[in-house]
Amino acid sequence: MRMSKLFTKTLKQAPSDEVALNAQLLIRAGFVYKVMAGVYAYTTLGLAVQENIKQIIREEMNAIDSNEVTMTTLQRPETWKVTGRWDDEAVDVWFRTKLKDDTELGLAWSHEEAIMEMMQQYIKSYKDLPRSVYQFQTKMRNELRAKSGIMRGREFVMKDQYSLHATQEDMDEYYDGVIKTYKRIYDRLGIGDSTFVTFASGGSFTKFSHEFQTICEAGEDVLYVNEDCSIAVNEEVLDDATKELGIDKNTLKPVKTAEVGNIFKFGTEKSEKMDIKFADAEGKQQPIYLASYGIGITRVMGVLAEKLSDDKGLVWPEAVAPYQVYLVQIGDVDDQAKNLYETLTKAGITVIWDDRVERPGTKFADADLIGIPHRVVISPKLVESDQLEYKSRTSTEAKLLTEAELLATIARL
Amino acid sequence: MRMSKLFTKTLKQAPSDEVALNAQLLIRAGFVYKVMAGVYAYTTLGLAVQENIKQIIREEMNAIDSNEVTMTTLQRPETWKVTGRWDDEAVDVWFRTKLKDDTELGLAWSHEEAIMEMMQQYIKSYKDLPRSVYQFQTKMRNELRAKSGIMRGREFVMKDQYSLHATQEDMDEYYDGVIKTYKRIYDRLGIGDSTFVTFASGGSFTKFSHEFQTICEAGEDVLYVNEDCSIAVNEEVLDDATKELGIDKNTLKPVKTAEVGNIFKFGTEKSEKMDIKFADAEGKQQPIYLASYGIGITRVMGVLAEKLSDDKGLVWPEAVAPYQVYLVQIGDVDDQAKNLYETLTKAGITVIWDDRVERPGTKFADADLIGIPHRVVISPKLVESDQLEYKSRTSTEAKLLTEAELLATIARL
Repeated sequence: MRMSKLFTKTLKQAPSDEVALNAQLLIRAGFVYKVMAGVYAYTTLGLAVQENIKQIIREEMNAIDSNEVTMTTLQRPETWKVTGRWDDEAVDVWFRTKLKDDTELGLAWSHEEAIMEMMQQYIKSYKDLPRSVYQFQTKMRNELRAKSGIMRGREFVMKDQYSLHATQEDMDEYYDGVIKTYKRIYDRLGIGDSTFVTFASGGSFTKFSHEFQTICEAGEDVLYVNEDCSIAVNEEVLDDATKELGIDKNTLKPVKTAEVGNIFKFGTEKSEKMDIKFADAEGKQQPIYLASYGIGITRVMGVLAEKLSDDKGLVWPEAVAPYQVYLVQIGDVDDQAKNLYETLTKAGITVIWDDRVERPGTKFADADLIGIPHRVVISPKLVESDQLEYKSRTSTEAKLLTEAELLATIARL
Repeated sequence: MRMSKLFTKTLKQAPSDEVALNAQLLIRAGFVYKVMAGVYAYTTLGLAVQENIKQIIREEMNAIDSNEVTMTTLQRPETWKVTGRWDDEAVDVWFRTKLKDDTELGLAWSHEEAIMEMMQQYIKSYKDLPRSVYQFQTKMRNELRAKSGIMRGREFVMKDQYSLHATQEDMDEYYDGVIKTYKRIYDRLGIGDSTFVTFASGGSFTKFSHEFQTICEAGEDVLYVNEDCSIAVNEEVLDDATKELGIDKNTLKPVKTAEVGNIFKFGTEKSEKMDIKFADAEGKQQPIYLASYGIGITRVMGVLAEKLSDDKGLVWPEAVAPYQVYLVQIGDVDDQAKNLYETLTKAGITVIWDDRVERPGTKFADADLIGIPHRVVISPKLVESDQLEYKSRTSTEAKLLTEAELLATIARL
């Protein structure tokens, strides 16, 4: 992508009402545009990060035989009344709207009930189980306050996944497999080392649900971890969990964390309340076991922005960066820059080519603010010596490389 | 994809309240699930078709330097009040909702005003123009009636695109380029021959806007075309347009069509009403020219379903089919089927492998209903003779081919 064709520009300042660091940086660097508190549009760079995160998760979901779908934002009250989740007293984040004939509708904040309703069309017998579906869908949550930038939005993108099973054993086994898949996802996203599976409250079937929490100063949660970080417990369930695990809670130390994933076993609760069942091998109607698994896509993006940025701007991990290389063109070397751009692109490397008429200092500052992993400079002087200047986003020193050395360096990382 | 892992099943009947042929077929074949009138979830097969349509359009959009973005569904009234499009009298398809503090919001049915508001952050001078952005976004339209299946939804996916220019000439030139791009898109989608650029009403800047209309019995529009189909005029502007073109309206004949694209020149209307301007070369504030360009993704999918289906089911064009090959496994040839599946996949051919324990007749009927372009049968008898049975969806005769012949046949089409 030629930068001269990109509609966004880096900004000196974020809107004065924006208090969250992640949104300040993402707005200044041109990844998101703030429509109102908790509601952000994703511009070209931001959408590229979002798609890269989604693609990693999509590959891992497909590998565990989960089928991609897209459910709807508009929801009928009947779908949610039967389980008691339509009322504001039970769920306080509903946005409501109305059809022309005054029929009340809700905007989906989650999809368990909607999924169960759809699945009853396809699941009749034990032969139709297990099943797993997932989606990347824009969720609407009518949050009272929205001050965490894209880490807690009123409109945000979520990967939500639902697995349906004939027995508790089958659900438990799949659920344990998803925990392994989630660990692989956070590894691939570059935050595996600082992400913990924790015991949390909120599961309606088992005593604890599981959360995936990443160490992050801007996080809203506190996690208690032991010395080697092999045990991590949410503050809200500290007493219960330490008792159950048989450990002294004073050996655990608090760290601030952000939730990046949340998984629940609903068991047969939804199936029984909604009367959606399957016929077992003897033809007897049995309730379906349900578990659900969430990852906030835009929340993960916000955590990466908060956690990995420095005083110069964003620092994207290689796997999610909107482009791998930021090519700084200095002076009149259009043809050589174009050749290099094409060589890199052909090698499967994504490049944003800063072909603008701007001072080198401006281009270097933008490269840092936007947070592209590899910076490559081409100039008349460098062309003359048949070299390129290379610097990674996180190192302070630049070095001179030939084109072949550059390709090898980027391929290695 | 192994069919035994797919959660959808073909159904004997669509819901009794579903009157549109496109939705009846898509529900029966397992591409969509009806949530309520005009509101459909997209299951795995339907989502694959949607993504294929989007990818063709994405490639064509990027080729004309349009930047992909995602705007928001939640909209502030202020954005739309200034141009007079917030009131129900002006726009009768708004869905409304409210924040916890009773602030009224709207759900986006289009994005001209939202785009202009965002673009003012990045466009200050003539050097920042022209710009073009596009998105694939879920639109909400509170239609009084919704009886056309996925061809007219209350919640549906649209490609909407906006171009901003310093002069009318520049807008006109880009606009003409988009018409060429749209023609290429409909060609690639397999409906180029039966799609016309027409004069229509509704443009607020020029006398006529342009629509792209595809001949389709289920369409809501009537088009008047001349003998060689070089001129096509919407019924609503027949008198005006024929007068302007200097032709006898009696030489044009009516055909039923469905709108598959719609493009407008807003000119400086939005810019002036919203007071969003740019500085020209002399530093003088000037209004921005705006044009917008839409393609209903799910509508196009509905038109393809209506128009190309036969009495056995759906018939997808090669470029948008969820899979290219439907592999029918008959009997105990798991290993051979797996080998063939892998050979085809490695050759870049997408395959749905019907590995279910079902009668051959059921599998053949499902292959036809789902509408996959190429059907390949493998059975113990065929394995013995080192052959495969091949049939295209639209031919009535099957033929025997070796694996090499099969690969060549599919590659050729």
